[in-house]
Amino acid sequence: MDARFQQYVKANMGRFAQDVIRLASQPSVSARHEGVEECASLVEKMLIEVGATTRMLRVEGAAPLVYGEVPSSRSKKSVMFYNHYDVQPEEPLELWKSPPFKPETRDGRIYGRGVSDDKGELVSRLKLAESYLKTAGEPPCGMKFCFEGEEETGSVHLGEYVSQYPDLFRADAVVWEYGTVDLEGRPKVTLGVKGMIYVEFVVQSLSQDAHSSYAAALPSAPWRLVRLLNQLKDEGDMIQIPGWYNGVETLQEEDLRVLEEMPFDAEAFKRNYGAKALLGGMSGEQAKKALVQRPTANIAGIWSGYSGPGSKTVLPKEAHAKMDFRLVPGQDPDDLLKRLRKFLDDNGYADVKIELESMEPAARTSYRDPFAQAAIGAAQSVYGTRPVVELSSPGTGPLYLFTRRYNMPSVDIGVSCEDSGIHAPNENLRLDLFEKGIYWVAETVERFAAS
Amino acid sequence: MDARFQQYVKANMGRFAQDVIRLASQPSVSARHEGVEECASLVEKMLIEVGATTRMLRVEGAAPLVYGEVPSSRSKKSVMFYNHYDVQPEEPLELWKSPPFKPETRDGRIYGRGVSDDKGELVSRLKLAESYLKTAGEPPCGMKFCFEGEEETGSVHLGEYVSQYPDLFRADAVVWEYGTVDLEGRPKVTLGVKGMIYVEFVVQSLSQDAHSSYAAALPSAPWRLVRLLNQLKDEGDMIQIPGWYNGVETLQEEDLRVLEEMPFDAEAFKRNYGAKALLGGMSGEQAKKALVQRPTANIAGIWSGYSGPGSKTVLPKEAHAKMDFRLVPGQDPDDLLKRLRKFLDDNGYADVKIELESMEPAARTSYRDPFAQAAIGAAQSVYGTRPVVELSSPGTGPLYLFTRRYNMPSVDIGVSCEDSGIHAPNENLRLDLFEKGIYWVAETVERFAAS
Repeated sequence: MDARFQQYVKANMGRFAQDVIRLASQPSVSARHEGVEECASLVEKMLIEVGATTRMLRVEGAAPLVYGEVPSSRSKKSVMFYNHYDVQPEEPLELWKSPPFKPETRDGRIYGRGVSDDKGELVSRLKLAESYLKTAGEPPCGMKFCFEGEEETGSVHLGEYVSQYPDLFRADAVVWEYGTVDLEGRPKVTLGVKGMIYVEFVVQSLSQDAHSSYAAALPSAPWRLVRLLNQLKDEGDMIQIPGWYNGVETLQEEDLRVLEEMPFDAEAFKRNYGAKALLGGMSGEQAKKALVQRPTANIAGIWSGYSGPGSKTVLPKEAHAKMDFRLVPGQDPDDLLKRLRKFLDDNGYADVKIELESMEPAARTSYRDPFAQAAIGAAQSVYGTRPVVELSSPGTGPLYLFTRRYNMPSVDIGVSCEDSGIHAPNENLRLDLFEKGIYWVAETVERFAAS
Repeated sequence: MDARFQQYVKANMGRFAQDVIRLASQPSVSARHEGVEECASLVEKMLIEVGATTRMLRVEGAAPLVYGEVPSSRSKKSVMFYNHYDVQPEEPLELWKSPPFKPETRDGRIYGRGVSDDKGELVSRLKLAESYLKTAGEPPCGMKFCFEGEEETGSVHLGEYVSQYPDLFRADAVVWEYGTVDLEGRPKVTLGVKGMIYVEFVVQSLSQDAHSSYAAALPSAPWRLVRLLNQLKDEGDMIQIPGWYNGVETLQEEDLRVLEEMPFDAEAFKRNYGAKALLGGMSGEQAKKALVQRPTANIAGIWSGYSGPGSKTVLPKEAHAKMDFRLVPGQDPDDLLKRLRKFLDDNGYADVKIELESMEPAARTSYRDPFAQAAIGAAQSVYGTRPVVELSSPGTGPLYLFTRRYNMPSVDIGVSCEDSGIHAPNENLRLDLFEKGIYWVAETVERFAAS
């Protein structure tokens, strides 16, 4: 990293922090459609201020997507930065020590909704561009910015944006949304996400609820649902749908090594959730692997009949279950959805409706990929400690929209902290990590540009 | 039946009908604790008016139980009449053609909440006593009246009343609540009810909800509940708890004959509930038998996690199911509840809570019992047609409190009609059946007294 670059960042940190406060002062709660347009305009303005060219992209019914570019003559490569300018709702208000949309600085942290997730990260990317432009005249490679406004409501139009403007989003690598340093000061590099199929099963056995005395002679929707669900998994939590695991890639030896190195405090994890044991009595090592590589079939919701106080003697006419199936690389959601339907049909549940809520494949970058190695090396260099490498987040995101279409690697790295309290009251951004995160991403981009 | 008795009833029908209107004009919605005290006072007043001695019984926190007696020197036997003065809520109001608590007479029927269930029936019992007192000077045997005010909310204090005043309720037979004539003019004699155990299962796996991505490594409460439930019954709907069917009595040949005679329109039953087939593809004949004699395990409610629109990726911390197990004669709820607990313990569900809501054994009077034969013979004589005999209602009630303690037979007979619309808007009482029902019960009591 150029010394002038670092000096510039250091000298301007006060102003950079003010820009985080400025952006976080503009509410942008996508769940309530509140302030989203205003926030998009502000983001565009801030992109222009740092010297990017911009486009405000729109598709019908969606929050605008703010696109930006800073070209470079130094490399043919370009890196895309994906962030979002919308935030989670601020409730419960009474638990905030300062107003969520009037960010305040206390003890080296800015407190406010979105200061970490994802406005602090977003501003850090802008300041990266600015610092290159002000010191070297241009970044080490092209920079592209994809700032969406619907991440907190499921990125439901992101695919449409990418399909509509395929050339804009073409790049050689993507820096994804968000990165953290853990409480022991170790930066974390995350290399992917799981995929997901989210469905609702609807079982209807009667046209109206019946008195439960008729359960002796009429079919029961909740029993039917219970039996169906029970056939989906065996006692060992293996999904019983034929072919479900067909494409699942086995972890390579180096992946296993990375996994082994990843810290995981099974006791703390159990304690936090009040679990007596991990799923199926698995060990901490097994849990680590499962979180990365195990396809799941989770019941996110189930309901039928009466759930109030006391008793009601009813034979419910219908029963519902919401399920999320997490997927790993090699599993194709389109194919699996067909297999799920066939499984139901083959087992006598042809009448059971499957309502699809969402569907996305996993996305994962190899540990050996030059971009991953750049981020890992940069972390070591900037923080002076070996980073934690997470092969995949246990969660899901629309990462595949970019990595699959453009066949590009991705890393999750950034400026946040493990205790930034995202989605919670008193969300905050540590200013020392905000600064260090800028160096981390800069060093990553430079290593990648040079690779 | 004495000619003078019948003349008296006929001559006073206008006044009797007015008394139904009078009682039904007093709201007594136990679910809302509305008008219950006032109604109890009115019932006591009406008992005194017909010449009964009364006691207003009270146990703490309960609606009063109005007790009455009319002795007789003609027989050592006595018959108890169980009815209730509380009614179902009147909603939905907009579907009523006349105000629910301002009863109106139209086309030979009185319309109003409770005119059939159970105030019309209750008044018919009072008028029975009055007519005997005014014509023969006393009834053919002793009459006792047990009028409770919590039937529509589960008769939760009735057992306490009976235990507290055991001598008051001692009798030789009981006429239970309610009886109907079907749309083809056939009176129905019902000889019992099923029993029930109503429980809620509570499965808790975590101390807080987790993000569903952690389903790869944390235990799931809804899956645990699904597996537990699945073990309770096999594919053929047989309950798998060891010993569950131990005491179940097989139907005698004469019971089977009675069952065979009972009309049952399986097609109409299926059509009414929009069922493609009966449970497990059973035939109409099998359904008739099941409704009388099959122990059930019904899921009245099941819930866990998210049930709103769209998707929420949550691993729920807990899961619940409400279940009603209907019982038949020979099954002891105390014993079965212990077996249920043991079944859960033996199958690894020792941590699953069973919250007991209510529990009562079945009660059934033999077809051959003199009291049953009296009711059947009386029906034939009064209506000139063979009555429908129902060995047991598929439903449940606190009948056992009397039949078991005092070892007495019971019949459900009365003055209502199959289309009286009980629990529904425009509940009504056919005045011709109100009159005939009085003769039917009179004739039943007389035959029983003479037997």
